[in-house]
Amino acid sequence: MKKLSILFMLAIFVIACDQKKETKTVSTELTAEEKTDKANIKKIFDTALLNGKSYEWLRDLTTNVGGRLSGSPEAAMAVKWGEKVMKEVGLDSVWLQPAIVPHWVRGEKEVANYTINGKKVNIAIAALGSSIATPSNGITAEVIEVKSIKEAEALGEKAKGKIIFFNRPFDNTLINTFRAYGGCVGQRVNGAKTVGKFGALAVLVRSMTNKIDDYPHTGTMQYGDIPKSEYIPTAAISTVAAERLSDDLKNNPALKIYFKQSCKNLPKEKSFNVIGEIRGSENPKKVIVVGGHLDSWDLGDGSHDDGTGIVQSLEVLHIFKSNNIKPKNTIRVVFFMDEEQGGGGATAYADAVKLTSENHLGGLESDAGGHTPRGFTIDANSGNTKLLKSWTKLLAPYGLHDIGKGGSGADIGPLKAEHTTLVGYRPDSQRYFDYHHAATDTFDKVNKRELELGSASMASMIYLMDKYLENPDSVKQ
Amino acid sequence: MKKLSILFMLAIFVIACDQKKETKTVSTELTAEEKTDKANIKKIFDTALLNGKSYEWLRDLTTNVGGRLSGSPEAAMAVKWGEKVMKEVGLDSVWLQPAIVPHWVRGEKEVANYTINGKKVNIAIAALGSSIATPSNGITAEVIEVKSIKEAEALGEKAKGKIIFFNRPFDNTLINTFRAYGGCVGQRVNGAKTVGKFGALAVLVRSMTNKIDDYPHTGTMQYGDIPKSEYIPTAAISTVAAERLSDDLKNNPALKIYFKQSCKNLPKEKSFNVIGEIRGSENPKKVIVVGGHLDSWDLGDGSHDDGTGIVQSLEVLHIFKSNNIKPKNTIRVVFFMDEEQGGGGATAYADAVKLTSENHLGGLESDAGGHTPRGFTIDANSGNTKLLKSWTKLLAPYGLHDIGKGGSGADIGPLKAEHTTLVGYRPDSQRYFDYHHAATDTFDKVNKRELELGSASMASMIYLMDKYLENPDSVKQ
Repeated sequence: MKKLSILFMLAIFVIACDQKKETKTVSTELTAEEKTDKANIKKIFDTALLNGKSYEWLRDLTTNVGGRLSGSPEAAMAVKWGEKVMKEVGLDSVWLQPAIVPHWVRGEKEVANYTINGKKVNIAIAALGSSIATPSNGITAEVIEVKSIKEAEALGEKAKGKIIFFNRPFDNTLINTFRAYGGCVGQRVNGAKTVGKFGALAVLVRSMTNKIDDYPHTGTMQYGDIPKSEYIPTAAISTVAAERLSDDLKNNPALKIYFKQSCKNLPKEKSFNVIGEIRGSENPKKVIVVGGHLDSWDLGDGSHDDGTGIVQSLEVLHIFKSNNIKPKNTIRVVFFMDEEQGGGGATAYADAVKLTSENHLGGLESDAGGHTPRGFTIDANSGNTKLLKSWTKLLAPYGLHDIGKGGSGADIGPLKAEHTTLVGYRPDSQRYFDYHHAATDTFDKVNKRELELGSASMASMIYLMDKYLENPDSVKQ
Repeated sequence: MKKLSILFMLAIFVIACDQKKETKTVSTELTAEEKTDKANIKKIFDTALLNGKSYEWLRDLTTNVGGRLSGSPEAAMAVKWGEKVMKEVGLDSVWLQPAIVPHWVRGEKEVANYTINGKKVNIAIAALGSSIATPSNGITAEVIEVKSIKEAEALGEKAKGKIIFFNRPFDNTLINTFRAYGGCVGQRVNGAKTVGKFGALAVLVRSMTNKIDDYPHTGTMQYGDIPKSEYIPTAAISTVAAERLSDDLKNNPALKIYFKQSCKNLPKEKSFNVIGEIRGSENPKKVIVVGGHLDSWDLGDGSHDDGTGIVQSLEVLHIFKSNNIKPKNTIRVVFFMDEEQGGGGATAYADAVKLTSENHLGGLESDAGGHTPRGFTIDANSGNTKLLKSWTKLLAPYGLHDIGKGGSGADIGPLKAEHTTLVGYRPDSQRYFDYHHAATDTFDKVNKRELELGSASMASMIYLMDKYLENPDSVKQ
């Protein structure tokens, strides 16, 4: 594309005419109220695309704070940063809400390798969050490859003294990559506790990604309630390393991996959710919350997970202020702390809600990356689900076609107990797991327009929820 | 995202259940034939995502050939490359179709600068295709900034001896970035011929992009039928340079730009379209053509424009072969030469069609980048437009919601004269103009899954067209 031939000019003209026609067709189907909504949604998008602040906020956070593990000094810096930007937006109030969070540190860079045909092969690895270290001289052991927790469970005593290598790949035929993640992540979370009881020495897990590259993707794992004597160290290995190791094991089943990491679980820390709000003009005690999580993993700068989610959430309130939209209900932005390692912030927020006389009417979370908008998933009763789905005709012109039942997000999820109408923002998922929890999750992977369209999508959803959501799914008395 | 809390597991479960339910609901609405189609489309997507070749073809082309201007040695290499890969797919026949194309060369790297407050400011520029050079010692002149052809036209004699700076930016509020491009590209194509007649010395044009960065975006310009004496040199300048220059002109309207480029229009060259086909089992003389363009600009490696389009087009036939789909009609892939500088290949193809007894039933072009799928635009009579739109229910589960009237593509456009049902593949447009015609249009900007989903989207469209398109819009006798 594209010489400006007469043909092309014609094409542009045809496209322009089509657009006009389509707009017209839709318009005639809209009620007067919907026409007002359509005009306001257009203003919301214009503001985000012309005067949005989210991209520069994200640049600032990721450049000047960077990765921000729960409990780390960087997470504490991120809290201060969050408070500062919320105050700059001129909200009615901004405050910090204490939360208790884990404090796991990675320690020295991990090392892993094996020798095959006299040649040393280095493996790109990264310890998983919550994992213990190896002994200081590392672990050297033979390897057993499995593709599932079930296969690992069946190993029994065979696992003793071995490193268990979980190598289940993403199912690339699943169009929504979150479903592929859902089909694999169990091995990362529960691999160690499955084989620790058999006396396995360690677990290596194929990285959770569609992409074949040499970056390990970290993430959390859980020992659950197994005795401490069964805790074994666990790390992610890159997909390139996983594929090579799998091949090499076919030819040399007795090869031994050397593996060393020095991560550590320190005592829990006090941290904070950062919260700000625009008070509702009619129902200040009815709250609609919008948020993402402030913490991230440490390998990248946490741009897509979940820097984009928090700057988009704050942009919603910035757009309301810029357009002088005065919400009926209180619109509250929350930068949740510690989504990645236990949800300390989500718990603190949900616990606090129980003690107030507030009604949480709605919640919206952005924690699926900052890519081009696709839709929303709704976790609500059937009436409110139907109501939200009916807004598709207003939102589809902005690429938001997929609006239907589904989950919301880990941070607002606990508000389910309050009968809150919960919504998850769903951008396109194709690129998300390329970067997720890896060193490649950095600011340069974020496209300014895609981010801004997401902010506007969310602001439009909050605008409609504020206007039309009458009550929580079942009103809390 | 995402600790695997019980809540999260629940969410995954809910998503999975929802998906199943949705599938079921849709299934019950499908006819038996549509169920077959649904199953075949699933196979098409599975093949693209598990065994697609497009990504490695694109890596090969962009790494080993790179940028491939019409008429250049690299374009000739690309023709050989195209013939080779088509033969590897095992098509029924592969051939080259001669086409006459322009041969413009950029020459030495362009230079432009000005001095302000005693400091020299370098401007990132790139000559526009078809432009003449400056004199060998360059041009130094004062600058007049305009925002449109109309404004330039109004300059009249004031333009004499000046460099005219067209600085109309993209309208970022337009959701489809091609519409923003359509609103600006006239200044690039027609700027020189508008002010050449007034005795302006040169034209500088703001790059055609939403992004503010320091890369100039080239593209074609036209002198049309003005006398050669009115030809003036024309170059694109980066958006960063455009914004700075505009500011500096406000403070120093008399500042002079020095500008030098040494591009040249050489005699036209013989080149080729590369063509291959699977012969139709029932109607070998009814043809459905799928293609993109093989040439590109020279600054990058032409990945998104239009490397992705040609590898996706060939993948359509590869997917048919892999799944043993035997089309009723002939499915023909065309790598068109010279879309960027005059459409020599498109003309050659359309001219040849006039001489055959073939009926061109349908055409599909991919020339809008290799990003995540969004839909198709249809240029056909109302019956066939309705038919194609009715396939939305089969295609929407793959992100193809936007199927409606619109243009097709510059290469297949001339087949309109054959009453062919023409279709344009429309991926998401947000990132396209970040790279378009610039040094940044490189292989690393292409996401493998997005590319493959596009190939499968196109293969599904061709599968349905082959099965259901009865006749050209009005049958050619």
